[in-house]
Amino acid sequence: MTGNKSSKKKELIAKDNFTEWYDNVLLEAKVADDRYPVKGFTVYTGWGMSIARRIIGMLEERLDNTDHDPMQFPVVIPQSSFQKEEDHIAGFSGEVFWITHAGENELENKLVLRPTSETAIYPMFKLWMRSHQDFPIRMQQTCNVYRYETKATRPLYRGREFLWNEGHTAHATYEDAEEQIKIALRIYSEVYDALGLSYIMLKRPVFDKFAGADYSVAFDTWNPDGKVNQIGTVHQLGYNFGEAFEQTFEDENGEQATAANTCYGMGFGRTLAATIAHHGDNNGLVLPPKVAPKQVVIVPILFRGKEEIAVGYAKELEAKLKEAGIRVVLDSDNRTSPGDKYYKWEMYGVPLRLEVGPREAQNKNATLVRRDNFEKVQVDEEKLVEKVNELFEAIFENLKAKDKAKLDSLVKDAYDMDQLEAYMEARLIVKVNWCGDAECAMNIKDQVSGEIRGTRWDVEEEPTGSCVFCKDEAKYVAYVSRTY
Amino acid sequence: MTGNKSSKKKELIAKDNFTEWYDNVLLEAKVADDRYPVKGFTVYTGWGMSIARRIIGMLEERLDNTDHDPMQFPVVIPQSSFQKEEDHIAGFSGEVFWITHAGENELENKLVLRPTSETAIYPMFKLWMRSHQDFPIRMQQTCNVYRYETKATRPLYRGREFLWNEGHTAHATYEDAEEQIKIALRIYSEVYDALGLSYIMLKRPVFDKFAGADYSVAFDTWNPDGKVNQIGTVHQLGYNFGEAFEQTFEDENGEQATAANTCYGMGFGRTLAATIAHHGDNNGLVLPPKVAPKQVVIVPILFRGKEEIAVGYAKELEAKLKEAGIRVVLDSDNRTSPGDKYYKWEMYGVPLRLEVGPREAQNKNATLVRRDNFEKVQVDEEKLVEKVNELFEAIFENLKAKDKAKLDSLVKDAYDMDQLEAYMEARLIVKVNWCGDAECAMNIKDQVSGEIRGTRWDVEEEPTGSCVFCKDEAKYVAYVSRTY
Repeated sequence: MTGNKSSKKKELIAKDNFTEWYDNVLLEAKVADDRYPVKGFTVYTGWGMSIARRIIGMLEERLDNTDHDPMQFPVVIPQSSFQKEEDHIAGFSGEVFWITHAGENELENKLVLRPTSETAIYPMFKLWMRSHQDFPIRMQQTCNVYRYETKATRPLYRGREFLWNEGHTAHATYEDAEEQIKIALRIYSEVYDALGLSYIMLKRPVFDKFAGADYSVAFDTWNPDGKVNQIGTVHQLGYNFGEAFEQTFEDENGEQATAANTCYGMGFGRTLAATIAHHGDNNGLVLPPKVAPKQVVIVPILFRGKEEIAVGYAKELEAKLKEAGIRVVLDSDNRTSPGDKYYKWEMYGVPLRLEVGPREAQNKNATLVRRDNFEKVQVDEEKLVEKVNELFEAIFENLKAKDKAKLDSLVKDAYDMDQLEAYMEARLIVKVNWCGDAECAMNIKDQVSGEIRGTRWDVEEEPTGSCVFCKDEAKYVAYVSRTY
Repeated sequence: MTGNKSSKKKELIAKDNFTEWYDNVLLEAKVADDRYPVKGFTVYTGWGMSIARRIIGMLEERLDNTDHDPMQFPVVIPQSSFQKEEDHIAGFSGEVFWITHAGENELENKLVLRPTSETAIYPMFKLWMRSHQDFPIRMQQTCNVYRYETKATRPLYRGREFLWNEGHTAHATYEDAEEQIKIALRIYSEVYDALGLSYIMLKRPVFDKFAGADYSVAFDTWNPDGKVNQIGTVHQLGYNFGEAFEQTFEDENGEQATAANTCYGMGFGRTLAATIAHHGDNNGLVLPPKVAPKQVVIVPILFRGKEEIAVGYAKELEAKLKEAGIRVVLDSDNRTSPGDKYYKWEMYGVPLRLEVGPREAQNKNATLVRRDNFEKVQVDEEKLVEKVNELFEAIFENLKAKDKAKLDSLVKDAYDMDQLEAYMEARLIVKVNWCGDAECAMNIKDQVSGEIRGTRWDVEEEPTGSCVFCKDEAKYVAYVSRTY
């Protein structure tokens, strides 16, 4: 994967050419390798998996703090369980992988590779609930799920195997489940916020909710190619799975009652893809310091005869930063030039570069270069740790503010179909007045290159005119966009 | 899962009755639930998964520190890749799950659920190596693998889905691969040592090495039922997979050369099972403090009218311990008695119990009770943190020493077949002189209830007589035991 560095430098691809830029960055920055010989299955390589692990850690920490028990359920679901909830099987049966044989045997009971785990988990929940005192039950697992996608696959965005965390809960009352929805939405928001990702929180229209849910709330984020990227979803399942899987218990009055469920999933591939696509630039990744596997790269500038001085000083600074808990790498590979190193670590998106030569060694200072805007600042050794932490914060705030501004710039209002179509062609996210009828939504989808994604969950938005399609009275403000 | 606590107390099962004890502890301490409706597939529940996550963390930290890139490879392997290495396919083809259909379609290329990932990973390694400068390549992943076991399954010990970490490496020379074997064995030893687990490091006999390896080294640990539990393996693959998967590169002289591979796996289910089985007692789990999800449980002793005093003081101590980075839980559930709480947290294996009543609140002290030996010690508040940390160390050292003594007591020498069989019946681990012939090994396996597991890797042992079976000259000291 190393090869001739100077020839690589010429391969820099402008981010405007997003598709090509993205594919190149995944490989060059060792995020993922899509050459695995099964369609829709991608290898997470070292740098990408290191970032993903940090995103996973951010979510799991919050799930731990809100009393979700970490668990691990099997990847296989027996056909009999899988088919118990009618809407659910209708929604998923067309896209599951089937295990039919093992060793030399044909299996008597075929197994499904989980496309999501409701039908694996709720039969066990049933065993764990006897009385109202057993609630709430809250579990979470980080795992892969499997869907035989027929749409075009894209690494991290849409694969047949995808890495996510799924949370599942059971409650004694519907109201308790409603409270849980709020907790889940808050936790998910916190993770996206910590990544500097802007998003729109939408209640999905009835025809686009999760198969088996009462309603679904999703986090849609913008993407440079003009599609929206669904990075997380939270579902109120109500009593649907409680009834299908006989999740019953003795309530406070000694009566048999049915439990209410919620579930939620954060896709780590898509969240990682958003982090790359939102913050990256022509030189490669630009990582928020919290999830950067290495936060500072030290590049010694070597002058013949004075190599020892610069490298010795670089090691001192490395030790100092390490001691302060900063993830630092000293790139003293003498097969590559400083320019090669700049190129490499910029591609990897390391937030800060620290340059040290003999002069810096003598003056006991160093030059810091920000990855997000290439600003250089000289800092004395004794202020180094403080300055580094200050710049991490500044980089994060900059990425976040730019991201928010970008999303704001993409959202437009349209009041008629021509305008809507024009904005769709411009790959924007468009707010329209909508009567609420599924038929109008289908007509919109047929006529323009996007579709209704839902209505705002977090803020109340009042329609300001008649339905963009049928011109009847509008009940909602709906968001229309191209989708992945 | 709560129910009537006092009736549960009567269910305590002596550990001498190991099988029943183990099944009961898994359920009662919420380690795992084996009632999942597919044979050989087990659910890791909250407490068990929390322990497993800490064991995983201990290993991954060491893999990070020795430059293993975290990656994630797909769970599916195309049949064409799977069948490339002859010995490997011969070893595994009888026990793999096959995915043959997806959605409504029959797959043109059948997929195997990985039983281990060599044949998934090495085709990608091939793409990542061009010159000798690209070495070493080192990756690791924590994932599940799938084997259609025909032997009896036991939760965590032997399942059809098992959670492990696998490391894979590629090197420019066989010698470099040999060095890597040493690193892997060291890392694995460190993790087992940190869990207080004693083990025997054995080079497996040729007929029992990993399918496709030059040789295999395994960690066998004792088990209360008299079988040995293989908790980790490290394999020198030599050039076998390099040749089968065309892992070639340009060496320092500009010649095409083939890479050497090593791979290793630590089974987390089995390691968790060993931790439970070795250290547990009649009252349930006894956890080494490092991996205990909660390290201290505070139980307030309530006297009518003085509840506030004890609970208030308990909260103070909880805050103090938390601040010191200790994982503490305050059990102030007023539906259960102190006795119920002792029972529960002893079952969970929490290393220290802290009892506080109104008198302790007044005297600003507390009573600490060790889980491993039930010793009580009173400690003043200002010495609490220090004492707790001191006791963690003492508990760990005690568990480790007892474990070592237990293993030592189980290993015996036998010089003839009668003695060997007698020791096997007594479920011991037996050292015998062995000529090295596979035929003798097969005869031994046929005649006694155990089999040759290998010869010591970490120490040289000289045979002291003739082969236990054929009476020819012995070349090795072999270890014979019952196996899982």
